[in-house]
Amino acid sequence: MTCLRMSTVERAQLAMMLEVSAYPKPGNVDRCHDYPDTRLEHFLASTIFARPALEEADRGQGRIGEIIKHAVRDTNCHQGGNTHFGAFILLIPLIYGKDIAGAMRAIETTDVSDAIAFYKAFAMTSVRMNASDELDVNDPHTLTLIRDREMTLHDIMHHSAAHDMVAREWVTGFPLTRRAADLLNQYGPGRDAIVKTFVTLLATEPDTFIIKKHGNEVAEEVLFSAREVLDGKRTLEDFDADCIMRDINPGSTADIIIAGIFIALGEGWQWDS
Amino acid sequence: MTCLRMSTVERAQLAMMLEVSAYPKPGNVDRCHDYPDTRLEHFLASTIFARPALEEADRGQGRIGEIIKHAVRDTNCHQGGNTHFGAFILLIPLIYGKDIAGAMRAIETTDVSDAIAFYKAFAMTSVRMNASDELDVNDPHTLTLIRDREMTLHDIMHHSAAHDMVAREWVTGFPLTRRAADLLNQYGPGRDAIVKTFVTLLATEPDTFIIKKHGNEVAEEVLFSAREVLDGKRTLEDFDADCIMRDINPGSTADIIIAGIFIALGEGWQWDS
Repeated sequence: MTCLRMSTVERAQLAMMLEVSAYPKPGNVDRCHDYPDTRLEHFLASTIFARPALEEADRGQGRIGEIIKHAVRDTNCHQGGNTHFGAFILLIPLIYGKDIAGAMRAIETTDVSDAIAFYKAFAMTSVRMNASDELDVNDPHTLTLIRDREMTLHDIMHHSAAHDMVAREWVTGFPLTRRAADLLNQYGPGRDAIVKTFVTLLATEPDTFIIKKHGNEVAEEVLFSAREVLDGKRTLEDFDADCIMRDINPGSTADIIIAGIFIALGEGWQWDS
Repeated sequence: MTCLRMSTVERAQLAMMLEVSAYPKPGNVDRCHDYPDTRLEHFLASTIFARPALEEADRGQGRIGEIIKHAVRDTNCHQGGNTHFGAFILLIPLIYGKDIAGAMRAIETTDVSDAIAFYKAFAMTSVRMNASDELDVNDPHTLTLIRDREMTLHDIMHHSAAHDMVAREWVTGFPLTRRAADLLNQYGPGRDAIVKTFVTLLATEPDTFIIKKHGNEVAEEVLFSAREVLDGKRTLEDFDADCIMRDINPGSTADIIIAGIFIALGEGWQWDS
């Protein structure tokens, strides 16, 4: 039975749930793997607790920066640390604008207040910035800097796009989100398609979360390993075990997969088979 | 960080999510085990899709039978079959009445219209009745029978209590729900407490879902095995594997665990540690 009456908000929640439940996903929290401090339940709880903010976005009113802040605040109420910050950065404009084109229009209207709210959200997470970044979230001068320069949230994403693939989606029109949705539609229904989409993205796009944590070289290695899996030269299980052992988790790719599932579900992709 | 602002509805959703994610749970769908047609994702999707009906219950208005019907209708929109019918029978009066005492008061007000709505919900599921039951959900005369006898939903539960431990909760004041909550509080925080509570209930209460499917003797065997696990004479993994091999799933105990988690969370039990 197809969920004809699934709301946009439920679609976003389902995307978050399906992404984290899919397995095996190299290095990330999945059905078969927890991190010591962040477990499957934290991601699933976040899916439940995010609802009010997702509903705010769905009403298409209010400021996007503020809504992202609400999503982070409401899902931070467990001990698992950050689970979906990157996913919210993508999902909230996509819900707000109804589709990618609408999200891009919404993004263009962001202003300094969005940028400030966003940085306040950032400060609630433990997401790392680049060490050299002058817009460091831990630096109290950052908010002054944003105000003085009259930076919008769109500007902030421009600033971050070079080293953050999630921010880059805002600037470039969600190409990886679109690609993830296309791959899901291409790979067919069910959770295996999510895993295949994940590995395919990993094999072509260096994950910027890995770059920030481990450097370019490790990110390139991961890309190469993903390609070996696609070529049948290596098992996914082996790749996964290696990532886990080395504490490598492609978190930004996961965020993009969530946005891709959200789009694909709206286009009739069947999760349930 | 404790979820101070968790709403009653979120608490119910969290209870559903935590129950199905806990593992290993002998015989049931859990984080490590799917059934061919019903998978973890179906249970988790049901957790998301149940929200409007849970909110209806939370408003404390409307008819309980109708709200149960809405919950079943909204969560049936996937191919995984019935996931939470028994859980809704317990959760919806508990949410509606705010606690066990309030649930019992709400239950007393049910009338013929609740009974009819409930049977319509039942007809949407593939839950089995006892073969000999004159109130068979597949029998078109059943609704006439309910109307003629002016049976309330409370009466229906009385009728079913002898062979259904979920129905029995309505009639006896939720003693197993209360016991599950007490066990959780006693076993301490986190998902291990859920598994221990599950095994402890199994070791004392024959699961009526097993009785309906496999008969009394198998239910007694399961009870005995659970006791062996508690006594350290058998591993939980071995018990789980045996249940899975024999297609034995203690589904009614799972429903009661969900209700118990819901109550325990309201009393400050910590899921997140």
